[in-house]
Amino acid sequence: MVDPIELNDALERLHAFLEGADLEGAVAYLRTLHPADSAELIAELEPEQQAAVIDRLQAPELAEVFEQLDEEDMADVAQHLDVEMLADVLDEMEPDMAADLLGELEPEQAAEVLEQMEEPADVAALMTYAPDTAGGIMTAAPPSLRRFWTVAESICFLRTHYAEEEDFFTLYVLDRHARLIGLVDLKALILAEPEQTIEEIMDRNVISVRATADQEEVAQLLQRYDLVSLPVVDDEERLIGIVMIDDVVDVIEEEATEDIYRLAQMSPDSEIYSPIPESVRNRLPWLVVNLATAFLASSVVTLFEGTIAQAAVLAAFMPIVAGQGGNAGTQTMTIIVRSLALKEIAPRDTFWALWHEARVGIINGVSVGILVALIAGVWQGNPYLGLVIGLAMLGNLIIAALAGVFVPMMLKLVRVDPALASSIFVTTFTDVFGFLLFLGLATYFLQYLD
Amino acid sequence: MVDPIELNDALERLHAFLEGADLEGAVAYLRTLHPADSAELIAELEPEQQAAVIDRLQAPELAEVFEQLDEEDMADVAQHLDVEMLADVLDEMEPDMAADLLGELEPEQAAEVLEQMEEPADVAALMTYAPDTAGGIMTAAPPSLRRFWTVAESICFLRTHYAEEEDFFTLYVLDRHARLIGLVDLKALILAEPEQTIEEIMDRNVISVRATADQEEVAQLLQRYDLVSLPVVDDEERLIGIVMIDDVVDVIEEEATEDIYRLAQMSPDSEIYSPIPESVRNRLPWLVVNLATAFLASSVVTLFEGTIAQAAVLAAFMPIVAGQGGNAGTQTMTIIVRSLALKEIAPRDTFWALWHEARVGIINGVSVGILVALIAGVWQGNPYLGLVIGLAMLGNLIIAALAGVFVPMMLKLVRVDPALASSIFVTTFTDVFGFLLFLGLATYFLQYLD
Repeated sequence: MVDPIELNDALERLHAFLEGADLEGAVAYLRTLHPADSAELIAELEPEQQAAVIDRLQAPELAEVFEQLDEEDMADVAQHLDVEMLADVLDEMEPDMAADLLGELEPEQAAEVLEQMEEPADVAALMTYAPDTAGGIMTAAPPSLRRFWTVAESICFLRTHYAEEEDFFTLYVLDRHARLIGLVDLKALILAEPEQTIEEIMDRNVISVRATADQEEVAQLLQRYDLVSLPVVDDEERLIGIVMIDDVVDVIEEEATEDIYRLAQMSPDSEIYSPIPESVRNRLPWLVVNLATAFLASSVVTLFEGTIAQAAVLAAFMPIVAGQGGNAGTQTMTIIVRSLALKEIAPRDTFWALWHEARVGIINGVSVGILVALIAGVWQGNPYLGLVIGLAMLGNLIIAALAGVFVPMMLKLVRVDPALASSIFVTTFTDVFGFLLFLGLATYFLQYLD
Repeated sequence: MVDPIELNDALERLHAFLEGADLEGAVAYLRTLHPADSAELIAELEPEQQAAVIDRLQAPELAEVFEQLDEEDMADVAQHLDVEMLADVLDEMEPDMAADLLGELEPEQAAEVLEQMEEPADVAALMTYAPDTAGGIMTAAPPSLRRFWTVAESICFLRTHYAEEEDFFTLYVLDRHARLIGLVDLKALILAEPEQTIEEIMDRNVISVRATADQEEVAQLLQRYDLVSLPVVDDEERLIGIVMIDDVVDVIEEEATEDIYRLAQMSPDSEIYSPIPESVRNRLPWLVVNLATAFLASSVVTLFEGTIAQAAVLAAFMPIVAGQGGNAGTQTMTIIVRSLALKEIAPRDTFWALWHEARVGIINGVSVGILVALIAGVWQGNPYLGLVIGLAMLGNLIIAALAGVFVPMMLKLVRVDPALASSIFVTTFTDVFGFLLFLGLATYFLQYLD
């Protein structure tokens, strides 16, 4: 039994070795750990310590470490290695991970390293696929079988050629043109009689995906059909790799994080550990775009300067109407954006969603409108002020509901990521209409307000 | 080769059968599809059509359908079945899915159905675990082996007892007290010599989890160690089930959706297809809480009514300072909340993060401050107005950065979900301080503004 280690404790122990200049001890300690944990610890070290530890590890050990790191950490650790060592390490790695690592290097350095590798073919082939496609995330296909082999022959074939391979769970059956025609689970192979043929035990219902398919489509297929691996085929239906479900777990988490950051109006590449200049680049442009829309809203307010000069209290209540509209609009927009991402709705549901959200907006608008009218009216001792703010609130929450549906649906229709730009448009709507409704009504009732 | 079907086309075909009153044809068509697809189509039907189709399916077919549905759809479909049929269906289902379905029924109905089941023991045991724990999401353990068995004996054992079981990929080795002592991948079993013992080929490094562990911890272990299944043990280390990675994919997606909805200030249970009253319940309370903080901010503005009466133009620029603070604060807060969820940072990193974000805030504040000062100053032909709004902007973006770190970190420290309440607090800070800074500075420079 191995208990998952507490990484902070392990990091302290590792630091204790390194501060005592006991490099041997540090490396020996790392070797006792699960590769996922030792990789994570190495990624946490300061560059000089990292270089010293890396220097003591063999190529196969380094290959294991790299296979556990995310792409950014890969590049950091790789810089401690010279071209020959890097080529040796890459030869030991799974081709898909090796391609990821090479993709993190400068193009000239990557070319140099590829040239030094003993078996660059698989890796070079993988590098031709875009990183966010099935081809980009796939790994080498497991052993493939022929339909006329017997179970005994197949097992003998696996023993001879694949004893050292990565774990596999499902074997694929190919025809003479390397086209995918069936699959055999290892369980079926174990339970079959030795003299049965593969054709007798194979499952012809293979779900596969083209190499050019988007990684989100791959994730959805694996989820929808509860698969552990999904075969990837080329245009002639020839098997060229597989995507394992654990690769897709990372894709799903990545895509969710990207949506969260886009909804908060920042670059999807944002990371808390980014250097300051990068953090600024990931956020400042969005603030500037927002500034433009804020000036648009404030130019609406300037139309009513005369009204505000007469009843300055309006300035205090004006942001409440706009702000609540923004909040309600964000609620609707967020549920639409997320439901689009999870394929629960599509642009053809726009009218249904408008009607659904309009009703929610009316109920919320009446409730919040009455509440805000009572509070403002009593506080300022003026029922007309209550009436004005209450009506403006109702109007703005209905507008918020409609904009919250309409904006992301239209962006989706024109193939812009709805998470990317919805916030800006929706809050512009709710600010402009919030100010317009509130100050417009206030101007109409001005004689009762000051 | 099976191509994943286009669900909308399939739904139209199914409707065509049903509108022609060809129930036999509809059922025959459903039988040609993958269970995941036919289940989804059945879930999409109107209640009467659903009842008619369900009525034609056998218990084993219904079990397959239920295993593919999410919990809400399960309950909808189950209402068409009587207690006896439901018990038959549950007997055919995987125990974990059966427990989920029973959990969706009324307690009395569930008890009645359990009583009618032929083998209720496994299901009843699973129902004792909280749904968001390892025990709640685990499924029955696959066949377990003993360490002194030979490979040949083990395969014979599997053939005799487990030919009809669900797919499995990893076998676990138990000692005489049913405690977990090792694992054997099917691949290792296939490649081993028949006379080798399990002890010789088993891997002793088994990572396991307690039944009471939170589902998020389960998801993290499976991801961190790239596992396909994770054994679940009781307090005595006895194997009681496994969690498969595909169950965890749903957990990860669910948790991301919950965070997204909480950040947008709505209930994590929100769904676009919720009935109107539920949608209102999921959103209105948040709007009301926001209303309270909005009144707090507006009470700050009322302190400066005299200033605004003299320079009504201030009312137009006031929301820009508060709004940009809100945007910048949301950026920082979101990256902190997401990084906490992904365990990339922890509350002990608060000082580091405050310093990191403060620097980003200063750079963004200076940039946006200069820009807003120039635009406002030129537009209104008053450099003092530019100075006031520029300084207020700088100050508010620094406050936004600090609040954006501090609020979620403190919530995490006191064990409140940071996604839940951070937005409210952060925007209250940026509204109150935005108004205070801008109107305070404006009052100081008032003689130059009107």
